[in-house]
Amino acid sequence: MEELINIRLGDQGDSLILIDQTKLPGELVYIEIKTREELFDAITKLKVRGAPAIGIAAAYGYYLCALKDIGEPDFFRRMDDAERYLASARPTAVNLTWALSRMRQALKRSALLPREEIPAILLAEANAILEEDIASNLKISEYGLSLLNEGNGVLTHCNAGPLATSRYGTALGPLLLAVERGVDIKVFADETRPLLQGARLTAFELQRAGADVTLICDDMAAEVMKEGKVNAVFVGCDRAAANGDAANKIGSLGLAVMAKHFGIPFYMFAPLSTVDMETKSGKDIRIEQRDPGEVTELMFPQRMAPEGVKVYNPAFDVVDHELIAGIVTEEGIIRAPFEENFKAAFERKKAREEK
Amino acid sequence: MEELINIRLGDQGDSLILIDQTKLPGELVYIEIKTREELFDAITKLKVRGAPAIGIAAAYGYYLCALKDIGEPDFFRRMDDAERYLASARPTAVNLTWALSRMRQALKRSALLPREEIPAILLAEANAILEEDIASNLKISEYGLSLLNEGNGVLTHCNAGPLATSRYGTALGPLLLAVERGVDIKVFADETRPLLQGARLTAFELQRAGADVTLICDDMAAEVMKEGKVNAVFVGCDRAAANGDAANKIGSLGLAVMAKHFGIPFYMFAPLSTVDMETKSGKDIRIEQRDPGEVTELMFPQRMAPEGVKVYNPAFDVVDHELIAGIVTEEGIIRAPFEENFKAAFERKKAREEK
Repeated sequence: MEELINIRLGDQGDSLILIDQTKLPGELVYIEIKTREELFDAITKLKVRGAPAIGIAAAYGYYLCALKDIGEPDFFRRMDDAERYLASARPTAVNLTWALSRMRQALKRSALLPREEIPAILLAEANAILEEDIASNLKISEYGLSLLNEGNGVLTHCNAGPLATSRYGTALGPLLLAVERGVDIKVFADETRPLLQGARLTAFELQRAGADVTLICDDMAAEVMKEGKVNAVFVGCDRAAANGDAANKIGSLGLAVMAKHFGIPFYMFAPLSTVDMETKSGKDIRIEQRDPGEVTELMFPQRMAPEGVKVYNPAFDVVDHELIAGIVTEEGIIRAPFEENFKAAFERKKAREEK
Repeated sequence: MEELINIRLGDQGDSLILIDQTKLPGELVYIEIKTREELFDAITKLKVRGAPAIGIAAAYGYYLCALKDIGEPDFFRRMDDAERYLASARPTAVNLTWALSRMRQALKRSALLPREEIPAILLAEANAILEEDIASNLKISEYGLSLLNEGNGVLTHCNAGPLATSRYGTALGPLLLAVERGVDIKVFADETRPLLQGARLTAFELQRAGADVTLICDDMAAEVMKEGKVNAVFVGCDRAAANGDAANKIGSLGLAVMAKHFGIPFYMFAPLSTVDMETKSGKDIRIEQRDPGEVTELMFPQRMAPEGVKVYNPAFDVVDHELIAGIVTEEGIIRAPFEENFKAAFERKKAREEK
C-alpha cells in the first residue's frame, strides 16, 4: 500500500505539497502552496490539520518565506512578520507557535552567518522538526500499544493519525502498530462533528491500513461504552497545560466524563511539543470559535465516510434510572423510587378518570 | 403565527394528512396517507416521528383500515393483521403498541354492535387518544416549567416538541410556555445525529415560536455544561421501564452522564402512556438498529438548520486533568501529578538529547 505523505517540499524545493484533507475520503488531492497567504488559508480551512502536522507545515512555510525574502534589506523584520502571521492562523494548538519559535531561534543563531547560508540552516531545522515528530510518534505508538490487550476495543475521536502528524500518528499510532503486528483491536471512530474528521479521515486511514474500524456518531459513544465494547479511549491533544488539563477537539471532554462514569481509562496522546508549561491550567487555553456555517451546512459532499466502512447505528439508548432526576408526566414529576411512584401516578390517573 | 397540525384526517375523512418531517426545515410539505403500507413507510422513514405522534398516527391508521375493510367477511382477522403490521414499524417506542392496543380494545368492546356502527367508535377512540395527548402535554409543560427559573439555560436533544406529539410537546412544552409567558429561558439544542431532529425540527419549532435557541453539535454538550450555561437537561422519552430506566433518542445516556458529572439535573418528559410497567428494566427494551447509510451519507439537503439560527461552534474543549488516565508522550505515559511528571519528562528528553 502506497504511503500517503501529507506534507513535503515540492520537487523544485520552493513550494510545499500538502494533501487537501477536506477532500478526503472522496478524493486524494495534492495542493501546491507557494505563498504564506496560501498556507494561512490551508491551515484555517483545515486542508492541513492536526496539531503536529500544522507545526511541521508552518516550519516549512517559514523556510519558504526565508527563501523568498533572503535578498531583502529588511529580511529579519519580514521573518518576524511571517512568524506572527502564520502563528495567528489557529490559536488553540500549541505546536504551531512552538514550531515557528524553533525556526526563529534557528534563524537568530545564524544571524551572523553570510546570508546565503541561512536558508539551508532553516531547511535543516524544518527537516529536524519533521524527523523528530516521526521518531516521537513511533515511541508514542509503542507506549500506547502497551496499554492494550488482544481483543480490546478502543474508542477514538477526531483524527490523530498520520494525516494529523507526520507518520504513524499519535492516538492512532498504537492501532496501526497493532494491525502491523496482527494484534486484534477493534476501533470505534466517532464521526466528530462538525467537520467529520473521524468519518472522513480516521475511518479512511484505519480502513486503508486494514484495521477493524466501526464508525459511530458522536452521540453513540456512551451506548458503545455501556455495552462493554470499549476498554480504553485514545485521543490526540492540541495543547496540554502544566497541570495536565488538555485541550483537544470539541467532544473530548464529554468522552472523558463518560469514560470515567463507565470505568474506562481515557488517554490522550501528544509529543512533548504539545505540552505548554507556560500555560498553567485549562482556564488559560484560548478556544477557537469557528464559523456557524460549519454546523448548519454540510461542508463536504453528502457521502461522508469511505465506502464499505462498518457502521453501528442504534436509534436509541437507555438512560439508567440513577441518572434521571425525574420523569415529568401529566400526573406530576415522578422521582425515585420510580416503580412505586409510577404505580401511584397510574392510580391517581385512574381515580381521576373514574370520577 | 399559523399553528402546524402534524397529524389530521383528510377532508374526505378517508385519509391521513401528515407533515413530512424529513423535509423540514427547508420545506413544509403535507403528505396524504391512504393505505397501511404508506403509513408504515412514513413511520419507518421518520416522516412522522416522536413517540406520542407515532401512537396518534397509528390510531388513525387503524381507524382507516377499519373503514376500508369493514365490509369484508374476515374483518376482525384483517384488523389483527393491521395491528401487527403497524406495530412492527418501529420497535422501541411503546406508544405505538399502546395506541394500537387501545384501538383493538375499542374494537373488541364494539364487536357485538352492528358493523356500520364500528368505524365511528374507532374514530372516537383515535380522537380521544389525540385529545388526551394534548391535555397531557399541557399538564406536562406546566410541571416542566415549574422546574425552571427566569434566566435559566436548558439543553435539549432530538425533538420532543409539537411535531413529536400533538400540540405543545413534552420536553419542549415548558420552553414554549415560557415564551408565551415572557419568561427568559435560553435553550441549547443538540443537532442530534444522524437524522438531525434537533437542528431540523427543534431549532425550527423554537425559532418559529420566538424562543432564544442556540444550535450545537452533539459533541459540544459537555463544553456548554462546563461553561455554566445549562441549568437543566430536558429530553423526551420513548419507553420508560418500571424501574425508571428510560429509552430515548441515542445520545440521551451520554447527556445524562455528563449532566450528573456537572451537577445538572437531567429530566425526561413523557405522558404515562410511555411508561411500560410490563418492561421491568432497561435491559428488556429492544433498541432499534437503523441503516448505516444514515451515518455515512447525509439524508437531508446540505442546509440542515433554519436560516438565521444562532450557533455555538467551539473547535476544542479542555479535558480536566482529573479525567485523564495518562498523556502518552515520546518520554512515556505521563500520569498525575502531571506538572511534576511533565517536568521530569522534559528533563529526561533534554538529558538524552545532550548525550
